[in-house]
Amino acid sequence: MTEREAMERALELARLGRGRVFPNPMVGAVVLAGGEPVGEGFHACCGEAHAETAALERAGGSARGSTVVVSLEPCCHASRTGPCCEALAKAGVRRVVCAMEDPDPRVSGRGIAWLREHGIEVETGLMEAEAHELNRAYIHHRTTGRSLVTIKMAMSSDGMVAAADGSSRWITGPESRARVQEARAACDAVLVGAGTVRRDDPSFAQARTVIVVSACGLLDPRLALFRRGRALVVAVPEGLGPVKDGLEEAGAEVWETPPAGKGLALEELLRRAADRGLGDIVCEGGPTLAGELVSSGLADRFVFYYAPMLLGAEGLPAFRGLGAGDISRALELEISSSGVTGRDRFVEGRFVHGAR
Amino acid sequence: MTEREAMERALELARLGRGRVFPNPMVGAVVLAGGEPVGEGFHACCGEAHAETAALERAGGSARGSTVVVSLEPCCHASRTGPCCEALAKAGVRRVVCAMEDPDPRVSGRGIAWLREHGIEVETGLMEAEAHELNRAYIHHRTTGRSLVTIKMAMSSDGMVAAADGSSRWITGPESRARVQEARAACDAVLVGAGTVRRDDPSFAQARTVIVVSACGLLDPRLALFRRGRALVVAVPEGLGPVKDGLEEAGAEVWETPPAGKGLALEELLRRAADRGLGDIVCEGGPTLAGELVSSGLADRFVFYYAPMLLGAEGLPAFRGLGAGDISRALELEISSSGVTGRDRFVEGRFVHGAR
Repeated sequence: MTEREAMERALELARLGRGRVFPNPMVGAVVLAGGEPVGEGFHACCGEAHAETAALERAGGSARGSTVVVSLEPCCHASRTGPCCEALAKAGVRRVVCAMEDPDPRVSGRGIAWLREHGIEVETGLMEAEAHELNRAYIHHRTTGRSLVTIKMAMSSDGMVAAADGSSRWITGPESRARVQEARAACDAVLVGAGTVRRDDPSFAQARTVIVVSACGLLDPRLALFRRGRALVVAVPEGLGPVKDGLEEAGAEVWETPPAGKGLALEELLRRAADRGLGDIVCEGGPTLAGELVSSGLADRFVFYYAPMLLGAEGLPAFRGLGAGDISRALELEISSSGVTGRDRFVEGRFVHGAR
Repeated sequence: MTEREAMERALELARLGRGRVFPNPMVGAVVLAGGEPVGEGFHACCGEAHAETAALERAGGSARGSTVVVSLEPCCHASRTGPCCEALAKAGVRRVVCAMEDPDPRVSGRGIAWLREHGIEVETGLMEAEAHELNRAYIHHRTTGRSLVTIKMAMSSDGMVAAADGSSRWITGPESRARVQEARAACDAVLVGAGTVRRDDPSFAQARTVIVVSACGLLDPRLALFRRGRALVVAVPEGLGPVKDGLEEAGAEVWETPPAGKGLALEELLRRAADRGLGDIVCEGGPTLAGELVSSGLADRFVFYYAPMLLGAEGLPAFRGLGAGDISRALELEISSSGVTGRDRFVEGRFVHGAR
């Protein structure tokens, strides 16, 4: 097994922690002795063993003189499971290959320096882009304190998310919907505005958690979201008294946030979501919530699907309140990929905030 | 030279007639004797020699026993230049290869039948798709009596053609704009609504003819369109008296059409444009004119450019008045190609009318 193959395996192992390790990163590690994998491990759950420790444990005595391939810089601060750097030195590891530095300010290069000071050869940057993508929510959280938000929109080719009467089933075809369902299953939570919930009555069956943002908290308990056994959070402004009790009786958890500007304090909401382990969030509209997230710089990524149809200006536009009064104040997008799903087209990338 | 190579050359020759032969088709012909081209010709101008006649003339005596490769079925009705079929038989041509049948009801297979009856071998369908594309406006005119209309729109990624204040320079980047300019130069006329002319003051420098549709005819003679030496048509409803005189004084030709429904009788306008030799028209908005053309089934093709930016619902939407009250009444698009131009994306194809 080459070091690159070992890194591919380490990333594969890391992914097994998806949805259970945040605010920690997903990490995988492989111990290579004489080109053979003699131990592997991953960070499985917040509070449990780190990937390197788990892999070293499996390798036992074979770790002496080995190369450890790990998807993130080993930690050197005293965490709940003890620093991994010390464990690597103690096991007699000769060389460490890691994909990327840990952006956590408590580590951030210090793990690598510590290993080198202790005579261990270190190489970084192998499959860095893949490792970065895997832990995008972790990295985002470590640098902003908030959850990473991806805006998903399914639109007509002229940018409308619903027809004049509010109907939107189905704008996009089955291939795009399958892709959206995969994204729902892979993220930590789906974020949606109350207007969209009332209009479409979505179940978001694949989502682990759904967060509904509502300025008034008035949601009918017969809505599909209340019928499922999955975690449901309704974010409302403080002081809604009986409305809050009603939501809780219907099975929702209620988050009260101080009202800010037009709606809820979305930044506060995203800090709270991150603190609750919901690091990777997909916002599925509606236009007002998506517009507020984008215009306030809280939306990070986007995936737009375009169906081969027109709905015209009488339809429901995808974004409201962007504040792009003139063309120089348009919100810039950086497209990283685009393609075809069935009869639809998609583009994805990130928002370029501060460009205007 | 193979017959396919000869057909490629015939299509190349045919293109030389672009912008000068409508309502006739663009046609090119090559005479092959012993695999060598001994004569070529094309239809250069309405009223002048047909491609086959021109090519036979060049070939002279070498035409006897030859193969004539031609991009359209030879005519057999008495046109201004006499039927080509007779000329082919008279020259002693042994075989004719044509790309497609002529959709003109006066020909439509009768030319091929006539040739076969006169002992000439005929093959059809070589490079048919290319020939069809080349003469799309001619074919459209022969079957509908109207000009072929392509809707071009440059939008933000959420379907807006201008920001809240009407500014739209430049939504798309230089690569897309260059592509649009090529399309303007290749078509017979650019069609645009008076609102867009007032808002953007475009010059459409590359267009041979510009047709402005105006319900009131009130256009400032200082607009860029009036400053150029190119043909300018302003289409207005009947009975605008002094307004009409003012437009003519400013250098525009005025077409009066009976008012129909909300605006002008667009079908009437497109028949008149076709009669005037403007067979291939690109409509560049605005939202009202484009919406009317699409909803009334008069728009045939589209090219949409999407810039990597958002403008939000406060911007100017691409289409108005499509009448898509619910999602089942959305206007269906058939996308034939899509891709990247610089930082923008484009899709092109045709409108599927009658689908709803």
